[in-house]
Amino acid sequence: MSLRPTLDFLLYNWLNAESLNQRERFADHSRETFDAVFDTCERIAREKYAPFNRLVDTQEPHFDGETVILPQATHEAHKAYAGSGMLSAAQDYDEGGMQLPYTIEAAANCFFAMASVSIGSSLLTKGNANLLLVHGTEAQKEVFARNEFAGRFSGTMCLSEPQAGSSLSDITTRAVPDGYDFEAEALGPRYRLTGNKMWISSGEHELTENIIHLVLAKIPGPDGKLIPGTRGISLFIVPKKMVGADGQLTGVRNDVALAGLNHKLGWRGTTNTLLNFGEGKYPVDGAAGAVGYLVGKPHEGLRCMFHMMNEARIGVGTAAVMLGMAGYYASLDYAKNRPQGRLMGPAGKDAAQPQVRIIEHSDVKRMLLAQKSYCEGALALELYCARLVDEQHTADAQAADDARLLLEVLTPIAKSWPSEWCLEANSLAIQIHGGYGYTRDFPVEQYWRDNRLNMIHEGTHGIQATDLLGRKVLMEGGKGLALLAARISATIERALQVPELATYAGALDKAVYQVGAVTKAAWATGNPQDALANAVPYMQGFGHTVLAWIWLDVALATLRSDTTKSIAATAGKMAAVRYFYHYELPKIGAWFQVVSDRDLTCVDLPEDAF
Amino acid sequence: MSLRPTLDFLLYNWLNAESLNQRERFADHSRETFDAVFDTCERIAREKYAPFNRLVDTQEPHFDGETVILPQATHEAHKAYAGSGMLSAAQDYDEGGMQLPYTIEAAANCFFAMASVSIGSSLLTKGNANLLLVHGTEAQKEVFARNEFAGRFSGTMCLSEPQAGSSLSDITTRAVPDGYDFEAEALGPRYRLTGNKMWISSGEHELTENIIHLVLAKIPGPDGKLIPGTRGISLFIVPKKMVGADGQLTGVRNDVALAGLNHKLGWRGTTNTLLNFGEGKYPVDGAAGAVGYLVGKPHEGLRCMFHMMNEARIGVGTAAVMLGMAGYYASLDYAKNRPQGRLMGPAGKDAAQPQVRIIEHSDVKRMLLAQKSYCEGALALELYCARLVDEQHTADAQAADDARLLLEVLTPIAKSWPSEWCLEANSLAIQIHGGYGYTRDFPVEQYWRDNRLNMIHEGTHGIQATDLLGRKVLMEGGKGLALLAARISATIERALQVPELATYAGALDKAVYQVGAVTKAAWATGNPQDALANAVPYMQGFGHTVLAWIWLDVALATLRSDTTKSIAATAGKMAAVRYFYHYELPKIGAWFQVVSDRDLTCVDLPEDAF
Repeated sequence: MSLRPTLDFLLYNWLNAESLNQRERFADHSRETFDAVFDTCERIAREKYAPFNRLVDTQEPHFDGETVILPQATHEAHKAYAGSGMLSAAQDYDEGGMQLPYTIEAAANCFFAMASVSIGSSLLTKGNANLLLVHGTEAQKEVFARNEFAGRFSGTMCLSEPQAGSSLSDITTRAVPDGYDFEAEALGPRYRLTGNKMWISSGEHELTENIIHLVLAKIPGPDGKLIPGTRGISLFIVPKKMVGADGQLTGVRNDVALAGLNHKLGWRGTTNTLLNFGEGKYPVDGAAGAVGYLVGKPHEGLRCMFHMMNEARIGVGTAAVMLGMAGYYASLDYAKNRPQGRLMGPAGKDAAQPQVRIIEHSDVKRMLLAQKSYCEGALALELYCARLVDEQHTADAQAADDARLLLEVLTPIAKSWPSEWCLEANSLAIQIHGGYGYTRDFPVEQYWRDNRLNMIHEGTHGIQATDLLGRKVLMEGGKGLALLAARISATIERALQVPELATYAGALDKAVYQVGAVTKAAWATGNPQDALANAVPYMQGFGHTVLAWIWLDVALATLRSDTTKSIAATAGKMAAVRYFYHYELPKIGAWFQVVSDRDLTCVDLPEDAF
Repeated sequence: MSLRPTLDFLLYNWLNAESLNQRERFADHSRETFDAVFDTCERIAREKYAPFNRLVDTQEPHFDGETVILPQATHEAHKAYAGSGMLSAAQDYDEGGMQLPYTIEAAANCFFAMASVSIGSSLLTKGNANLLLVHGTEAQKEVFARNEFAGRFSGTMCLSEPQAGSSLSDITTRAVPDGYDFEAEALGPRYRLTGNKMWISSGEHELTENIIHLVLAKIPGPDGKLIPGTRGISLFIVPKKMVGADGQLTGVRNDVALAGLNHKLGWRGTTNTLLNFGEGKYPVDGAAGAVGYLVGKPHEGLRCMFHMMNEARIGVGTAAVMLGMAGYYASLDYAKNRPQGRLMGPAGKDAAQPQVRIIEHSDVKRMLLAQKSYCEGALALELYCARLVDEQHTADAQAADDARLLLEVLTPIAKSWPSEWCLEANSLAIQIHGGYGYTRDFPVEQYWRDNRLNMIHEGTHGIQATDLLGRKVLMEGGKGLALLAARISATIERALQVPELATYAGALDKAVYQVGAVTKAAWATGNPQDALANAVPYMQGFGHTVLAWIWLDVALATLRSDTTKSIAATAGKMAAVRYFYHYELPKIGAWFQVVSDRDLTCVDLPEDAF
């Protein structure tokens, strides 16, 4: 199975990605240049990623005391990726980039995520460099960001600490000015950092010449104490190896030491580390602390970091989708080829007949269509969000601001929905394989393990839900939610004109009304404890409503398209829509009920009663 | 956390297990003897199983060319288990057993499943020996069954083949009479078997002196051809090593050869094998084929095998429950000790305050209560089914027949429901641990991997659903379903008298009505293709209704009990009931809708549209 027809349809027939070329920034591009990028990425993913997905699972990164060893295949995949220019796909021509729309970059990266999510597509390196382009000084951009885009350096995000995972206000990594002349440094105000950072992906490896850590730390107040809360947090560039203002390595190692590798359930191709900053293993100039260069202003670190958070969350959602898609294709292939059992006729089963392939069994079809409906729907959502990123950056002021607001509201869904439902898709892919799916001889168990991470990293399910109900639907007087409702209503209006879609339009209309009503009901007492007690069920119902909208909008494009090209593909899409409206959307009732009741069954239970 | 208070409550306060001692068979027993069994099992599980659960996951069974090597811990756990007498716990005193109720045996085995499901509790050995007690000859009982109960031999079930997993009618293992005098053999009519058997748990190891395979094979007709369908299937005892009529090994190896070990996602402490019967590696007396002794009559093999199927399915369900419970306890412990974040006050969060433990966060409480509600509810269901097994064997004729019928209807739920929802519980346990839950430093990821097997083995989810909607609710003119509805109604009647429970009783009444209505609607056309198209959603709705009933019945017992003993435990149980009725039962609407519509969205989709 190739992803291309699905991707092409969503980009060109639904999202009208070609119209982006009318914008000045993308004027040199055309469907041909987009397709050439897809061709290249699809080929590299097929040749350098997919064949090694199991290998990177079994040959976990290990530390020999000096360096972290990764399989040769990982080195070659990274080389091929950097060589393709994808690291700077969306960057300006002036920066050596391809100046591609983000929509196209995101779509092109799907091939790598599907082929081997944990070999990775340098999401963090790009996010790191992008942040520096916005918040860094000219020298920081030149020395760090550009070398990341060029593939010489790679990047990390160092937020969590062992005692502070989701709660960033509790980080204790300290940053103190490095000498009286600390502000005279070419690469930015120079500090010395001490502390431990946990869950750092790609925190140590030999894939690139250097690793550029972006580190959250607190600058102590005049009393030497750390400022409580997130307001005290600043952002620093901490290179693994010291770099001169000319971008060359100075030959001095910075005091960043690997304290441990995390051994994970899945996603094993990516190193995940505990790093010690300034523990004294590699002292620089005889002084204590790892050298770090301030980015932006002191105490504004979290704001800078959030700049890369939205894209990172869309990236996580997309990874979840592509793992789901990989499982869908694997189980579809298996179902088409595995003979087992017979169909039930009016007179029972006739054992004298040959066995049928399992795709002929109704329950296998149900499990395949569920996967298709989850994964293709979620892919559409991710691409829609990617398109909003382009709108935000290149559309006129009003449209750009609308896109920004919509992204605020949709990001928690784009991150959480696929991490829950495309994981469920992976479970169905295992189920279709039967006992074989439970063995490591087939790829589906690994997809399921890999995908389980996505509900955890970049903000857990609970954090996304609190962000959605506690912040996003309220912000700017509820304008984001109103805007989303208006977009959905526009889809409903169009769908009401199409006989095949009118019933779905009606169902969606009801669902959107419910979203509005339960949002109000949740906040009726004004007490966050009441409102947020059921934030996750709220997000689940909200997410299913969003997906129903996306599918209805895709259905409109499907019926509008020239269906003579692929009657089967059209039938498949319309069945996925139908599946979603018949089997999935009705689930929102149960989720929304507890929200609108402000049900405190869980909150009220005393600890000793568990 | 100890399982004991929960188990004690369900057995003694709810199921009135002590009343079994009024039956002649159990007259020597008392709560004291039951408790002594639990004490022993709890201790062995704590000392010999739990500490090695991770070890058996990482040190997978391997084959050195001659023998399959298992960790020493597995040998010692098995020795302790056999030494405890649990292998023959439910057997007659005359057989050297303890003549315990099955309810008590099943409850006692919970400790081992929770401590290390894949070290195992010899479920297959007991099932194998029990089958022989019913269908075997005196000699077969003496030589095989009794040595299994004594722990000298262990047992397997050899049903599936590489090309025939769920579809047993397609097995091709052949059994031909071994010489003209094949019926003169002391251990039963002697045949020679050739064929391959897949997914054979405990198919090869050195834990016991011998392994007794119970093998399904076909005896060819006069034309030499295998009879199509399940009617052609017979059952054979095929020992790994040849045994004399005196029960001693003869020193001759039978022609059963290990063809491969399966490398699984989880449940790795248990060997799972592909076995070749009669491939010629160990020829016996120079003739071809593995030696097997017929059990029961020719062509009645499947009927004999089904004798052990119901108990095996309850066993699988219980294993799923206990994995869920293990994750619940682990995450509860973690949540009570891990500080992270702060509660949202009316004025937001106060960073100057110390962090709270995560059990204080509402979403963590929700995830804990969900686990409690799934796992304790499912444990109650499994114990209820175990109690029905005792009723079937020791109650008066009418009650025994009722118990048989109820078991027929409930077994698909007892097997499928925990395998789906206690797996979900394990996922929530990971989520509560955050990033740590995704590492192999904490036990919860292993529970989740181990539990994923339970939806597959002993009849997949799809098979259970077809069994339920295609056979069990229809059998004997729908008598089983009517009987279940009557039991549920009796609970509803009692609950209506209790003010705290009246609302739940009303909700359950509605749900039961829906079960009846959708069952009729599903079969309205009489066409199995229409009815069974949504057998899995039917089973999901049916399962949630059954669990709601179980919880309501448990609630009655909770309120009836002397609550001064543990106010907290009572509050916990009542919250779990409330959680189930508020958050879970409303889900049935979405599942039942597609069943009653006889929705053919999935069935109708042509293959090329996926």
